[in-house]
Amino acid sequence: MPHSSTAPRRGRPGYDRQTLLTVCVDVFNRHGYEATSMGMLAQHLGISKSAIYHHVESKEAILEQALDDALDALEASLDGVMADFAGPGEQVEAAVRGTLRVLVEKMPEVTLLLRLRGNSAVELAAMERRRAITRRLGEMIAAAQEAGAVRGDITPRNLARLALGMINSIVDWYRPESDSPGHKSVTEMVDAVTRVVLGGLRG
Amino acid sequence: MPHSSTAPRRGRPGYDRQTLLTVCVDVFNRHGYEATSMGMLAQHLGISKSAIYHHVESKEAILEQALDDALDALEASLDGVMADFAGPGEQVEAAVRGTLRVLVEKMPEVTLLLRLRGNSAVELAAMERRRAITRRLGEMIAAAQEAGAVRGDITPRNLARLALGMINSIVDWYRPESDSPGHKSVTEMVDAVTRVVLGGLRG
Repeated sequence: MPHSSTAPRRGRPGYDRQTLLTVCVDVFNRHGYEATSMGMLAQHLGISKSAIYHHVESKEAILEQALDDALDALEASLDGVMADFAGPGEQVEAAVRGTLRVLVEKMPEVTLLLRLRGNSAVELAAMERRRAITRRLGEMIAAAQEAGAVRGDITPRNLARLALGMINSIVDWYRPESDSPGHKSVTEMVDAVTRVVLGGLRG
Repeated sequence: MPHSSTAPRRGRPGYDRQTLLTVCVDVFNRHGYEATSMGMLAQHLGISKSAIYHHVESKEAILEQALDDALDALEASLDGVMADFAGPGEQVEAAVRGTLRVLVEKMPEVTLLLRLRGNSAVELAAMERRRAITRRLGEMIAAAQEAGAVRGDITPRNLARLALGMINSIVDWYRPESDSPGHKSVTEMVDAVTRVVLGGLRG
């Protein structure tokens, strides 16, 4: 197995906890969480398994921390939207925009979240928090439907699922650090995707 | 590990090849392809590993067959759209509708396709076919932009990715066989999702 090109090979065992978590999440995303062993993580990090255990108690603790990071940020974004915007239509637009921003900022952690299969209590708890986020967006959409700002011919829950489907898909193709032609700045991408999502919601 | 509730326990080793493949794809989707061993497949099927090898030569051959099923159907749908519809706007709408129908008909195989990480030549080849499908939809969208039927403020490639993000997300929540309240018939769902996707594309 080749060493990861994303694992900085600086002075081992000089990882801080956050850098170690970042590398581990990257390995999870490339090989799958279940297919990743602590031995594989050690190999990618270039340190011993016991050195990993100095930072974290288990593979599952790494997963849980990464999922918490993603979910905390997604929930905080919705909290901010509800505090900052009064109009239902404005709330929906701000929620779409805020969720896209979190996806860019926490892309590896959100990618991990989106691929969960529910094979453990930790995964099931994260999936329940994710469903609660979908429900909150659905409630915003329901209010916007009543205000006439969002199409009324589809249930708010399914509109929330479809909007999040489009939003979440950016983790599969958008790379904020890429300087290849055709890649846009974060703000341009967030604006563009928000327009398309809102176009779909407004009908 | 509990036996799968989806594995029909009828007279072993009485599986036909298609039923065996279906059960294996289901196990892949629940546990992850890489985390699934031939031993796990045998356990879920309730037959021996050697009985599996009677039908298929390897775990990867099962993956390849499932991916081919999904990709063949997606490509055939686009071929049909190009043969049956002349107007660019009509083509895009028919492509969205046709892709949704394939997703419902081949949901387990498409789910497997959507979760690939590119860890083998088989996976990389399937991902390249998937990208070619996205490019074909992008070309239809480009033609529809020129005809004024689709918004022109976002690249056709990114509109294709966003549309497919919304379309593909149905595998996470739509269950055609479910009779729980709120689940709609396939035709109703396909119509509703098509309206939302087209709303986003038209702006």
